[in-house]
Amino acid sequence: MAPVAAAVKLQLACFEQYGPPGFKAFKHLCDRAAKAGLIVIADAKRGDIGISAAAYSAAYIGRPDGFDGKIDNLGADAITVNPLFGSDGMQPFFDDCSQYGAGIFVLVKTSNPGSVDLQDLSVGETPRKFYQEVAVLVDKWGSKLIGESGNSSVGAVVGATHPRVLADLRETLPRTPLLLPGYGAQGARAAEVAVAFDSRGLGALVTASRSIIYAGEGEDYAARAADAAERMRAELWQASQG
Amino acid sequence: MAPVAAAVKLQLACFEQYGPPGFKAFKHLCDRAAKAGLIVIADAKRGDIGISAAAYSAAYIGRPDGFDGKIDNLGADAITVNPLFGSDGMQPFFDDCSQYGAGIFVLVKTSNPGSVDLQDLSVGETPRKFYQEVAVLVDKWGSKLIGESGNSSVGAVVGATHPRVLADLRETLPRTPLLLPGYGAQGARAAEVAVAFDSRGLGALVTASRSIIYAGEGEDYAARAADAAERMRAELWQASQG
Repeated sequence: MAPVAAAVKLQLACFEQYGPPGFKAFKHLCDRAAKAGLIVIADAKRGDIGISAAAYSAAYIGRPDGFDGKIDNLGADAITVNPLFGSDGMQPFFDDCSQYGAGIFVLVKTSNPGSVDLQDLSVGETPRKFYQEVAVLVDKWGSKLIGESGNSSVGAVVGATHPRVLADLRETLPRTPLLLPGYGAQGARAAEVAVAFDSRGLGALVTASRSIIYAGEGEDYAARAADAAERMRAELWQASQG
Repeated sequence: MAPVAAAVKLQLACFEQYGPPGFKAFKHLCDRAAKAGLIVIADAKRGDIGISAAAYSAAYIGRPDGFDGKIDNLGADAITVNPLFGSDGMQPFFDDCSQYGAGIFVLVKTSNPGSVDLQDLSVGETPRKFYQEVAVLVDKWGSKLIGESGNSSVGAVVGATHPRVLADLRETLPRTPLLLPGYGAQGARAAEVAVAFDSRGLGALVTASRSIIYAGEGEDYAARAADAAERMRAELWQASQG
């Protein structure tokens, strides 16, 4: 994948269901991906009160507590985070972004149909949707972590399955890298995600999982997966420049 | 702890920060606790789209996919779950509750100060708070999983640090087991959590972590921790019968 992808997003649930050996495989894959020059995003969707959030952050992008630094973290560059706990639950992740040059992607609007149940609730007097309220917080949180590129270390997850939402959130979040699940197997097409790129055609990471994982099987799997990835890369590149 | 506690709640973040060996220790502790006759609650606060939620559920309370059932799950009886993804993200957990007699506790109102940021937002025209909206969903979800005791397999996490909220949510959730963090180190007292028990003095699990873990150190640690636990048990028992 390395030549056609900027990053890999590893879904923790797939590893976690196999317990300790699953986590061993996860760590191994993080190392392999890093050696191939890929950014590793741990799609863990963690979130907790501050003291526990600090441990989650340490696990992926920070440094585990104690043992005189002799225990490595799992080796990710970024992690997806659930914002439900609010500011004090997010702070440890911000601290590690700042200290270790890491990144996070905060769930703003997820790609699944059930995302309407809570994320689309009308909030306040204006009113706006719950996910728009989250986006305002993400912009505020991220404003303290803007890098040389002009983008923040605090990104947002926005389902590519909601094109109008995507355009709206790109306006609310001009400096926020967007991580876009939903392209491919979940139904979103390249033209629909185009609104997520900034004026330079940058600032968005479009993820494809099932459309690559299930691209084929048997001996020519690697070739088929690479073909699928390259086809999507070309399609997305064109869309980003449109 | 076994003689004075009904259950243990293990915070996943504490284990996860140490990677594969951390998960090995977690699994070991689950086994030990089960042998001591304790209910094991994996405080994992997981949540994702359906296909990934199914893997998380399998990891803790269901059965891992593939390998002909040869890989065990981590051995919990219940798991804490983040509801942000909505109904389709919750369904796999409900399925495993039903199939394996397991339980879940859905985050409704967390114990930390930052919980106001999103969970206390005013929602809809009535208006009510976001967490009340989550509670209504929890009651609906749980109504399909009522057991012989009259309680549901779908519980709720409500911070004991908010006594008024607790009383309000007990009304919305008459058949929902409440898991109450915030007692002890986080500041809530026994009298304040009393409203969480039902008319039989049941239906609530009050958790204490730091007040037991840090009860002492050195050779008499086990004795001190047991003393602290027994003191809290007695205090809470009295409060539940008040």
